[in-house]
Amino acid sequence: MPPTIGVVGGGQLARMLLPSAARLGLPLVFLARPGDAVGAVWPAVLSGEPDADGLRRLAARVDVVTVEHELVDLDTMQTLQDAGTPVRPSAATLAIATDKVRQREVLAAAGVPVAPWTLAGDLDAIGAFGDVHGWPLVLKRPRGGYDGRGVWVVDDLDAARTVLDEVDGDPLLVEPKVTLTGELAVLVARRPGGETVVYDPVETVQVDAMCREVLQPPRVPAAVAARARELAALVADAIGSVGMLSVELFVSGEQVLLNELAARPHNAGHLTIEGTVTSQFENHLRAVADLPLGSPASRGPAVMVNVVGGPVDPQQRLAETLAAEPAVAVHLYGKDHRPGRKLGHVTATGDDLETVRGRALRAADRLTAPAEEASS
Amino acid sequence: MPPTIGVVGGGQLARMLLPSAARLGLPLVFLARPGDAVGAVWPAVLSGEPDADGLRRLAARVDVVTVEHELVDLDTMQTLQDAGTPVRPSAATLAIATDKVRQREVLAAAGVPVAPWTLAGDLDAIGAFGDVHGWPLVLKRPRGGYDGRGVWVVDDLDAARTVLDEVDGDPLLVEPKVTLTGELAVLVARRPGGETVVYDPVETVQVDAMCREVLQPPRVPAAVAARARELAALVADAIGSVGMLSVELFVSGEQVLLNELAARPHNAGHLTIEGTVTSQFENHLRAVADLPLGSPASRGPAVMVNVVGGPVDPQQRLAETLAAEPAVAVHLYGKDHRPGRKLGHVTATGDDLETVRGRALRAADRLTAPAEEASS
Repeated sequence: MPPTIGVVGGGQLARMLLPSAARLGLPLVFLARPGDAVGAVWPAVLSGEPDADGLRRLAARVDVVTVEHELVDLDTMQTLQDAGTPVRPSAATLAIATDKVRQREVLAAAGVPVAPWTLAGDLDAIGAFGDVHGWPLVLKRPRGGYDGRGVWVVDDLDAARTVLDEVDGDPLLVEPKVTLTGELAVLVARRPGGETVVYDPVETVQVDAMCREVLQPPRVPAAVAARARELAALVADAIGSVGMLSVELFVSGEQVLLNELAARPHNAGHLTIEGTVTSQFENHLRAVADLPLGSPASRGPAVMVNVVGGPVDPQQRLAETLAAEPAVAVHLYGKDHRPGRKLGHVTATGDDLETVRGRALRAADRLTAPAEEASS
Repeated sequence: MPPTIGVVGGGQLARMLLPSAARLGLPLVFLARPGDAVGAVWPAVLSGEPDADGLRRLAARVDVVTVEHELVDLDTMQTLQDAGTPVRPSAATLAIATDKVRQREVLAAAGVPVAPWTLAGDLDAIGAFGDVHGWPLVLKRPRGGYDGRGVWVVDDLDAARTVLDEVDGDPLLVEPKVTLTGELAVLVARRPGGETVVYDPVETVQVDAMCREVLQPPRVPAAVAARARELAALVADAIGSVGMLSVELFVSGEQVLLNELAARPHNAGHLTIEGTVTSQFENHLRAVADLPLGSPASRGPAVMVNVVGGPVDPQQRLAETLAAEPAVAVHLYGKDHRPGRKLGHVTATGDDLETVRGRALRAADRLTAPAEEASS
């Protein structure tokens, strides 16, 4: 019989694991906070924080532990692992995936191209790096940033000083600002024994540093896409990932560079639900349960657009959106409405990428626009 | 905010409503028996029978009531409806859909072609019908039969006598046995106001009177498929269905004849999960919640094969099946294993119908065969 899987977290990624878990008969228990989105749609939810106490209570009830977010007590994850509970991905993999400095050290050593970088805690070091590699620079907190938080682009020393003040002099990762021609993400599913499937790269489009759209196939030359796949497979092996890994890459002409990693199902892979033979959520569960992986093959053009909280609650715009866009899959996460928060996404599929893209963008706009704008 | 939907029943059809309900933010409450498949995967389950007491308790908690099976107390459904709870489909629609004699009366009057038939409770009447229309005949209980139960093919009066003895002389629906060239099902989603979407017909293949395979597209001439769509739309209007309706049809050369109806999501529509833009489960919920319907467009060839209990539990065969058929979607229902019981299904999609069909058949065989056979 299949293992019971403990999932740390109860947000939208947790919810999207549910259909595959039900279909494959994989019992899931979530460690979530009261009010988290998963509680309304799944019976087995353990209330608690992802701290030592919560993780120990979860581990006592399940056969294997995985995560839907990285804000988890890694020391306890390591302790559980040492005590015999499989932790997938491992504490070591999570430590690399959640630390942009460790990532660059480990992956550069494995032959993955990364931009020049340094770790700098004072203005002199930043200035010296800028003199060599040119301004503007990108400053990043090594840990904990997402959706543009913890990332700053600075044009000069004055701007860098303001950032250093803001972070109280904590060391920052410093990189030259790459002139991008695009961004890709490559999803990789990997089992404990090393069996791996690599999805075709998707193109990600950011607006205000938050992912707005994901496109399949990506609008890049075939050689760039092939290079991205190669790098992603290399990364998965180098960090020993188990479960889903999202490898985010910068494209600059023919060059492909590491941007960042997420060792879990990821926003870049939401379109796999409709757009590929096996979704990232199913392959995450298969990998964590150590079951054979499913085909990652594309089912044709697909575009996902995030639904980000605006002036109105998307749930109140549902009927009008379904009426206007009958060929779009709407995914709402059951989260309280708040401007700027990811509340859902829409995915469109079809034969022509631009047609599909227009459909998905219109549906996402309609879900978030005030009624008078949307009906114009 | 969307209505809370009460669903009578907790089997696989109930379970397959869940992903769409979660995605669209539609709260569901099930009336189910302890141990029913839905309880392990959904928090809001009311324990009870589909009798007057159970239905009243359900109605008290929800805004609208629907069904996943027809074994429901129709008098109480009518009483609830009269008292102001929307019942979708209505008690009147369910009364027609669950009675093969009423179906033939109502639909023949609406212009739907049905085979010659009579209702006979004695051997003389059966003999007289056989003399006019020719033997063999098909005898059917007007209500309650499924998967071949309550249906008998008789070659002569002696065989008919045995059946009459078995049913204690209850009146039986009598029809000539049609020489079939195929069977089709057409799924129709219909809203309370009459908005309707009609899916492309699918071909159903029965083995031992139980549905074994469903194929999209059907292997019939285009004119036959078009005729089937027309008839299904006519049927949905004639019985005022709300929610999903499955119209099962006999094909005999160019002729299309009514077989039977199901006013709910149906086994013939399981392939819509992967095979169409909007699944039958999503459109059932949209219709019941009176939301605009989704596109029923086909996404290309798809084949579903039922997983029927054999000597071993399919859950124990999962890992080997996933390894052998990585491009098939496996759906297990979480039901206790019992030979002859529908325990799951598999769906394959792709570009070529016969390739896809082979893949689905192999996966279903592997899930049910003893290990030594499956590995050969």
